[in-house]
Amino acid sequence: MPTPVALLLTLAATLGAQTNPASIAAHDYRVKHESEILGEFSRLLSIPNIATDKPNIRRNADAIAAALTKRGIAAQLVEIPNANPLVYGELKTPGASRTIVLYAHYDGQPLDPKEWATPPFEPVIKDGRIYARSASDDKAPIIAMLTALDVINASGLKLHSNIRFVFEGEEEAGSVNLERILASRRDLFTADVWLICDGPVSQNGQQLIAFGARGVVTVDITLYGPRRELHSGHYGNWAPNPAMGLARLLASMKDDNGRVMVDGFYDGIAPLSDIEKRAIAEAPVPDADLMKELWLGSTEGAPKKLIELLQQPSLNIRGMASSRTGAQASNVIPSTATASIDMRLVKGMDHNQTVARLIEHIRKQGYFVTDAEPTEAERTSHAKVARVSTKGFGYNAVRTPMDLPISQEVIRVVENARGPAVKVPTMGGSVPLEMIERAVGTRTITIPIANYDNNQHSFNENIKIENLWNGIDLMAALITM
Amino acid sequence: MPTPVALLLTLAATLGAQTNPASIAAHDYRVKHESEILGEFSRLLSIPNIATDKPNIRRNADAIAAALTKRGIAAQLVEIPNANPLVYGELKTPGASRTIVLYAHYDGQPLDPKEWATPPFEPVIKDGRIYARSASDDKAPIIAMLTALDVINASGLKLHSNIRFVFEGEEEAGSVNLERILASRRDLFTADVWLICDGPVSQNGQQLIAFGARGVVTVDITLYGPRRELHSGHYGNWAPNPAMGLARLLASMKDDNGRVMVDGFYDGIAPLSDIEKRAIAEAPVPDADLMKELWLGSTEGAPKKLIELLQQPSLNIRGMASSRTGAQASNVIPSTATASIDMRLVKGMDHNQTVARLIEHIRKQGYFVTDAEPTEAERTSHAKVARVSTKGFGYNAVRTPMDLPISQEVIRVVENARGPAVKVPTMGGSVPLEMIERAVGTRTITIPIANYDNNQHSFNENIKIENLWNGIDLMAALITM
Repeated sequence: MPTPVALLLTLAATLGAQTNPASIAAHDYRVKHESEILGEFSRLLSIPNIATDKPNIRRNADAIAAALTKRGIAAQLVEIPNANPLVYGELKTPGASRTIVLYAHYDGQPLDPKEWATPPFEPVIKDGRIYARSASDDKAPIIAMLTALDVINASGLKLHSNIRFVFEGEEEAGSVNLERILASRRDLFTADVWLICDGPVSQNGQQLIAFGARGVVTVDITLYGPRRELHSGHYGNWAPNPAMGLARLLASMKDDNGRVMVDGFYDGIAPLSDIEKRAIAEAPVPDADLMKELWLGSTEGAPKKLIELLQQPSLNIRGMASSRTGAQASNVIPSTATASIDMRLVKGMDHNQTVARLIEHIRKQGYFVTDAEPTEAERTSHAKVARVSTKGFGYNAVRTPMDLPISQEVIRVVENARGPAVKVPTMGGSVPLEMIERAVGTRTITIPIANYDNNQHSFNENIKIENLWNGIDLMAALITM
Repeated sequence: MPTPVALLLTLAATLGAQTNPASIAAHDYRVKHESEILGEFSRLLSIPNIATDKPNIRRNADAIAAALTKRGIAAQLVEIPNANPLVYGELKTPGASRTIVLYAHYDGQPLDPKEWATPPFEPVIKDGRIYARSASDDKAPIIAMLTALDVINASGLKLHSNIRFVFEGEEEAGSVNLERILASRRDLFTADVWLICDGPVSQNGQQLIAFGARGVVTVDITLYGPRRELHSGHYGNWAPNPAMGLARLLASMKDDNGRVMVDGFYDGIAPLSDIEKRAIAEAPVPDADLMKELWLGSTEGAPKKLIELLQQPSLNIRGMASSRTGAQASNVIPSTATASIDMRLVKGMDHNQTVARLIEHIRKQGYFVTDAEPTEAERTSHAKVARVSTKGFGYNAVRTPMDLPISQEVIRVVENARGPAVKVPTMGGSVPLEMIERAVGTRTITIPIANYDNNQHSFNENIKIENLWNGIDLMAALITM
C-alpha cells in the first residue's frame, strides 16, 4: 500500500528535468549497463565492512583501489598507524581552474545479523531495493562515482576540474583518525570544496544539498542511590531513589515545548542569513505525512516545522535504564540510574563548552559531579552524586555560506542534473565535517543520494535502485563540473 | 571489616536472654544437628520456586508436605483451579484453649540468573551466610518451623495450642488466589491469630514484631514516541522523545523531599494510637549506620527517621527503561519508554482508589490513558499517550492493635525467647494480610527471622546462618505457646 510519502516520491521522480550533458549521458549509459552495475555493487556489498574487522576492511580498500585503477586513476591507500586505510585517487585535468574532492566512506555501522531479514553481507534485490549493510550508507555513492567514470570514459566527456576521490574506512567508528590522516598528506587533500556524498535525500524524493551538518556530543549520566538494591517496602520513602532523581534531573533539562533549559545552551549561535532563511522557507514540508507514518499525535517544537527545528541544537535522551521493567521487575529501590544523552550542535556552539554548561546545570540541581565511578567517601559526603562522562567524543557543526561562488556553482550543476533541489543550511544528522575543514582548510557541501527510509544505522539497510540510478547521473555531473 | 551495624549485631546477640524452655531446648538441639538442618534447607532451596514454574512449584509443595508428614503431621495440599497448591498441616492439642496459624510462603521472586554471583538454585555457604533464591524470603522460616518440630519431638515439650501450618505458593506473584483458597476451606484456617513469618528483623539484629504491614500496588507506565526508533540527528527536536516525557511525568509525581504530589494520595490515612506512637519512639534508630553501610549522603524524607517514614505511604520507581545505554547506546529517539512503579499503602488507604488517583494525575499532565497497547488511531489522535496497567494486583494495609490480649501474649513469648523486641505498628514491606483477615476473620502479627541485609527480591539473596538458628529458637517458643 503506497503511503502518502511514497506517492510524493513518485511525483518527484517526474520532476527531474535533466539539462546537464554528463547526466544525460549517464542516464543513457546506465540503461544499457544495469546488470553490470548491479553486479559490481553486489560484489562490493558482499565484503563485510565493520570498522573493527581489519582484514575485511583491507579487502574493501583493496577492491575500491582496484576499481579506480581499472578506470585509469592512480589509486593509493593513505595509511597511518592503527587507522583503517583511506582510499585515494586523483583525476588530473590539464588547465583545471579548481580542485574538487568527492568524499564517501566504505565502512558500515556495527550490526546484529539476527535482526536482519536476510544476511547483511549477502545483498538481495526485493521490491526495487537492494538490501545489505552499507547499501545506502555509504557504498552506493562509491559505485555511483565509479560508474560515472565509466560514463565519462565511454562518452569522451571533458573535465574542467581536478577531481580527487577520498573514501574513508572508519566513519561509522567516529572518524577518530581522519584528521590525522588528512594532516599526514595535506597536499593530496586540499581542494576548493569537498563534496560529501553521504546521507539521505529529502523525504519527498527531491535531491537535497546540505551546506552544513549539526555537530554532536554524547554524554552518559549515572546517578547513585543505595550501594545495593533495597527492598522498596522496607526502605521506600527513606532511601533516595536514583531513578526518580534521574527523572527530576532530565525533566529540568527541557521545558514542555522542547526548549533546552541549560543556562547558555543557545548562546553564540550563528544567525541564519537571508538566503538560508529563504531556502528553509522554500523547502518541502513532509511533517504531516511523517507524523502519520510514525503514528505521532504531536511534535516537540510545534508549531515550528521539522526543517526549522533541525537548524537548532537539540538535547535528546537516547537511552535510559534503572533496575528492571516488565516481567523481570521487582519491588526494589534501584542502586543506580543511567541515561545516555546526545546533543546536536549548530554553528557557533562548541561541544566542550556545551558539555561544560550541561555539567554546570547538573551541579545547579545540587549534584556533586565526577567523571569517574564515585568513591564511598564521595557518595557518603554528598547528598546527590552524578557521574558524567563524554568519552572525549564530540565535534562541532559547520555551515558553508550558500552565497559563495562555489556554493552557487554546485547548486547550478546539481539542479541541471536532478531538477530543483532542496537546499538546507544545516542537515540534522552529524558528519565530522569540522575535522575535514580544520585539517585541509576547505569548505564542505553535502550531496546525498539515498532514499530517506533506507534504515541506515539499523537492520535491513537498503537503497532504492532508483536512487542509485539518480546518483550516477548526479556524480557524472559533479565530476565534469 | 566489621561495619558499625555488624558490631551492633554482635552486641544484640548477647542481649538474647532466653527464658523460654522451648527456645532453650531448640538451641541445644540445633548445636548438635547443624549439618543435618543445613542439608535439609539446602535440598529445599535447590528446587526452583518461581510462581510461574508450575512443575517445580509442585515439587516444592510435595517436598514440604513430605517434610511435615515425616514429623507426624497430617499434611495436605489445598488446591483450587489455576492456583499454586497451599501446603497445610495441623498439630492438634487436646484441651487447647486457642488455635495459632504459622504462615510462610515457599515461592520466590522472579530473577535473572546472569545477575547472580552463584546460580540462584544451587545454594552455597559463604562468610556465614547461605546464598540462594528464597534463602531468606521465605524458605528459612519453613525450615525453622520443621526443625522446631524436631526439637519438640526430641525433647517431649508440651503444646498448649492447636498449631496450623500454612505455606503459600504464590505470595511473590501477589497472592492472587490466596483469598479464594482460604475461603474454599475456611474450617482449616480460622485461628485466634495468624503469625506471619516473613521479612527481616531489625537492622541492629534485634527481634522484630510487626503488628501490620503496608499494602502495595504496582503500576506499569509506558509512553509512546515514534512508531520506530528514529535517527536522533535527522529527527531530534521534532519527534517527541518518550524517555523525556517519562522523566517529566515521573518528576511530577513527587517533590524534592519525597512527598507524593498526586492529589488525594494521603487522604483518609488512619492516625496512630498512643501505644503505637510510643513503640515508634522507643524503636532503635539505625539510620546513621545504615547510611554509612549503604553509602548514602542523604535520605529522602529527612529529618524524619526510617521507622517514621515507613508508617507513611510511598511511591517508588522500581524500574525504568528506554532504548539502550552503555556500549549498546546509539543515537536514536526511542520508540517507547517504560517505568514500573510500586506504591506502598498504609491503614485507611484503598489500593484501587490510589491507582485511580495516579491515573487521574497522569491525565492532568495531558496524557490520554489506556490500559491496552494503544492503536494507531489512538496514537495519532492524542498529543501524549500513556499505557497504564496494574495487572489487577494490589492489596491494602492492615494494623493489629498492640494492646489486644493476643498481641500482648505474643510479645511476652517472643521476648522470652529472643530478648527485648522492636515493636512496630506497620512494617515497611507488604504481605497480603488483608486477604487473610478478610477470608478467615482473624488478626495477624508478623514475626520475621531474616537479617535485614538479605538481598530479598534482588540477586544474591541470602540469610545469615545465625538468623536461621535464632529462627529455630523462636519457632519452638511460638509452637509451644
